[in-house]
Amino acid sequence: MRAYRIAAIAGDGIGQEVLPEGLRVLEAAARRFAIELTVTRFDWASCDYYLQHGQMMPDDWFDTLQGFDAIYFGAVGMPEQVPDHVSLWGSLLKFRRQFDQYVNLRPVRLLPGVPCPLANRQPGDIDFLVVRENTEGEYSAVGGRMFEGTERELVLQQSIFTRHGVDRILHHAFALAQSRPRKKLTAATKSNGIAVSMPYWDERVAAVAQHYPDVQWERQHVDILAARFVLQPDRFDVVVASNLFGDILSDLGPACTGTIGLAASANLNPERRFPSLFEPVHGSAPDIFGKNIANPIAMIWSGALMLDFLGHSQGPCRAAHDAIMQAIESVLLSGPLTADLGGKASTTELGQAIVDVV
Amino acid sequence: MRAYRIAAIAGDGIGQEVLPEGLRVLEAAARRFAIELTVTRFDWASCDYYLQHGQMMPDDWFDTLQGFDAIYFGAVGMPEQVPDHVSLWGSLLKFRRQFDQYVNLRPVRLLPGVPCPLANRQPGDIDFLVVRENTEGEYSAVGGRMFEGTERELVLQQSIFTRHGVDRILHHAFALAQSRPRKKLTAATKSNGIAVSMPYWDERVAAVAQHYPDVQWERQHVDILAARFVLQPDRFDVVVASNLFGDILSDLGPACTGTIGLAASANLNPERRFPSLFEPVHGSAPDIFGKNIANPIAMIWSGALMLDFLGHSQGPCRAAHDAIMQAIESVLLSGPLTADLGGKASTTELGQAIVDVV
Ligand SMILES: CC(C)[C@H](C(=O)O)[C@@H](O)C(=O)O
Ligand SMILES: CC(C)[C@H](C(=O)O)[C@@H](O)C(=O)O
Repeated sequence: MRAYRIAAIAGDGIGQEVLPEGLRVLEAAARRFAIELTVTRFDWASCDYYLQHGQMMPDDWFDTLQGFDAIYFGAVGMPEQVPDHVSLWGSLLKFRRQFDQYVNLRPVRLLPGVPCPLANRQPGDIDFLVVRENTEGEYSAVGGRMFEGTERELVLQQSIFTRHGVDRILHHAFALAQSRPRKKLTAATKSNGIAVSMPYWDERVAAVAQHYPDVQWERQHVDILAARFVLQPDRFDVVVASNLFGDILSDLGPACTGTIGLAASANLNPERRFPSLFEPVHGSAPDIFGKNIANPIAMIWSGALMLDFLGHSQGPCRAAHDAIMQAIESVLLSGPLTADLGGKASTTELGQAIVDVV
Repeated sequence: MRAYRIAAIAGDGIGQEVLPEGLRVLEAAARRFAIELTVTRFDWASCDYYLQHGQMMPDDWFDTLQGFDAIYFGAVGMPEQVPDHVSLWGSLLKFRRQFDQYVNLRPVRLLPGVPCPLANRQPGDIDFLVVRENTEGEYSAVGGRMFEGTERELVLQQSIFTRHGVDRILHHAFALAQSRPRKKLTAATKSNGIAVSMPYWDERVAAVAQHYPDVQWERQHVDILAARFVLQPDRFDVVVASNLFGDILSDLGPACTGTIGLAASANLNPERRFPSLFEPVHGSAPDIFGKNIANPIAMIWSGALMLDFLGHSQGPCRAAHDAIMQAIESVLLSGPLTADLGGKASTTELGQAIVDVV
C-alpha cells in the first residue's frame, strides 16, 4: 500500500469551513480504496498568522512543506485586515513559484443538476480545460514608482515571459490536447495591444505547435475569447493562457457552467520535484464566512484532482477520483444543496452527503 | 445651423462593408433633424495602404485629421497579411493616443428582440457602461528581448500607469456614475496578483472616490468581475477599468447581451481639443468579409454616439441620436436581420431598413 503525505492548509475565511469537508471526503475515499493518507494540518499561510507574526508563514515553510507529496489548500485573503498583494504574495503565490507549480489546470464542465446561467446548454455541452501558466508573465512584483506623491507620479509594472516558462506550459497544453478525443487547442493572446510580450507568446505557440501536428490549434485575442466562452462554450477543448489571462478565463469559464463555488484547480509541478497544490478557484469570501453556508464542492473536487495526480491517473487513486466525482454528481442531483445552488443546506450537511455516498 | 466635419475611415475587412451603412443612416438622421454634416472619406489607416506604402498612414495624418470634429471609423486588421500589432499600433492605437482620446465608453445594454445567451434575462435587466482607460496602462510597446533566439530568451513588457492618466479616467467614470439614477461604480482591479500597478490603481480609486460622496463604489478583481458579468449582470451601473481590463470586459459585456455585432464605442477626448473617434467594438472579421453579411448595427449605433457627443447631448443632435436608437430597436423587433441574429438579410438590407425608419 502506497502512502501519501498531505499538508492541509485552510488559510482564511471560508477556507476554514470547506477544508474540513474536503478532508472528510478524502478520508472516506481513502478508506474505501485502501489508500493510505497521512494528513498534517498547518494554521499558517493565513492572515491571522500574519497579524500575529508580521509574516504569512514561518521562515522554514519551504523545508517543512518540501517533504509532502501534496498541499491541500483552502483560500487566502482578508482584505480588510491585510492587503491582498501582501497576503497572496506571502503564501499562495510563493508556493506556486518556489515549488515550481507551473501548470494551473482548471476543468470547466457543466455538471448535471447545476442551473446554467447560459440559455439552452445541457450537461455535456461544456467540457473543456483551462491550462494556465502559473509562475511568471503578468504576475510580477517588479517595477516601481517615480515622483511619488506628486502630480507627476507614475508607476512602472514589469511583465516577464521566458522561453523556458512559455515553452513548457505550451508543451504541457499541446500534449494534453493530443491526449483528448477532440485534439483542439486555443491559445489566448493579446498581441494586437500588448506589443512586446504577446507577439513573443504567439511566436512560441507557432513553434511549439510544430511538435504536435495532429493537434488542431488556433490563437484568439483574449477579449473575443472571453466573449466566446459565453457565446460558443461548446467549441473549446484545451485553452492555454498566460498567468493573467488564465486567471480571468478560469473564473469566467466556471461562471458559465453555474457557479465558481464548484470550480476546482490543480497547481502542478509535473516533474514531481516539489509538492503540487490543490485548491478551489474561489477565494476566502469574507462576506459569507462564519455562517457555514459556503459550498464545499470546489474543495472536494480539488481533492479528487489531488488523488488522481498522486496516483498518476491509475489504480486505486484513479478509482477514488472517479468515486468522488460520481458522489458530487449524484448529490448535485439529489441534494442537499447550499444556498448558491438554490438549497438550504449548510457546508457540513453538503459535505456529509458526499461522504455518505463516496 | 451648426455644421460638423466628419472624417470617415473604413479600414479593413468588414469595416468597408459596415461604414457605408453607418454613413447612410447618419445622413438620413442629419437630413431629418437639419444637422449639417460634411463627410470626407480616407482610404488610409488600412492594411491595403500598408501593403502599398509600408506604413499604415501618410506622414501628415495628424494634421489632416486634426481639423475634423470627429472620426467615424470602421475596423483595422488583416492578420494574414500584416501582423496585428503593426496595423493597430500604426492606426487606431495612434489615434487614441495622439488625439488623447482617453475615455473609451462602451454601453452594454440588452436590446429588445435580441436573443440573449444568458438564461432568463429580459431587456432592461442589463444596462451598464464600461468606461475604459484608453491611452496607457498595459497597452505598451515598451520592453524588449534578451538572449534572443537562445534557450535563455526572455521578454520584458512594461505597463505604465500615470497619476494624470489614472485620475482623469476615474474622475470621468465617477462623474458619469453620479449623473445616473443608480449612482453605482465598480472599479476593476487585480491587485492581489499584479503587485505594483494595481495596488496603485486601488489607491487612486479610493482617493478620487472622496470627491463623489454620493456614489456607491466598490473594487472587484477582474477575474471574479468577469464571472459576475455572466452571473449577475443586473448589478452593474458604471464599470471603470484599465486599458486591458476594459478591453476584455467590453467584449464580454456585449457578448452577455447577445452579440458583439451590436456593440458600439466612443473614444473620447472630453476636452474637445482633438477629434474623438467612434467605432464598432468588433474587428475587421476577415473570415466573413466580402459576403455582405456583417451586421452594421454596431457601426450605426457608434454613429448615434457620435452625434450625441457632437451636440453635447442636447438639441437636434440628441434628437437624432434618439431617433437612430429607436430605429435600431424597431428593426431588431421587425427585421430584416443579418445571420448573426438568426436572419438572412445582407448588410445593405439591414442598413436600408434602419434608414427607412430613422
Ligand atoms: C484591435 C484592438 C487593438 C482593440 C483594442 O484592444 O483596444 C480592440 O480590441 C478594441 O477593443 O477596440
Ligand atoms: C488570489 C489570487 C492571487 C489568485 C490568482 O489570481 O492567481 C486567484 O484568483 C486564483 O485564480 O487562484
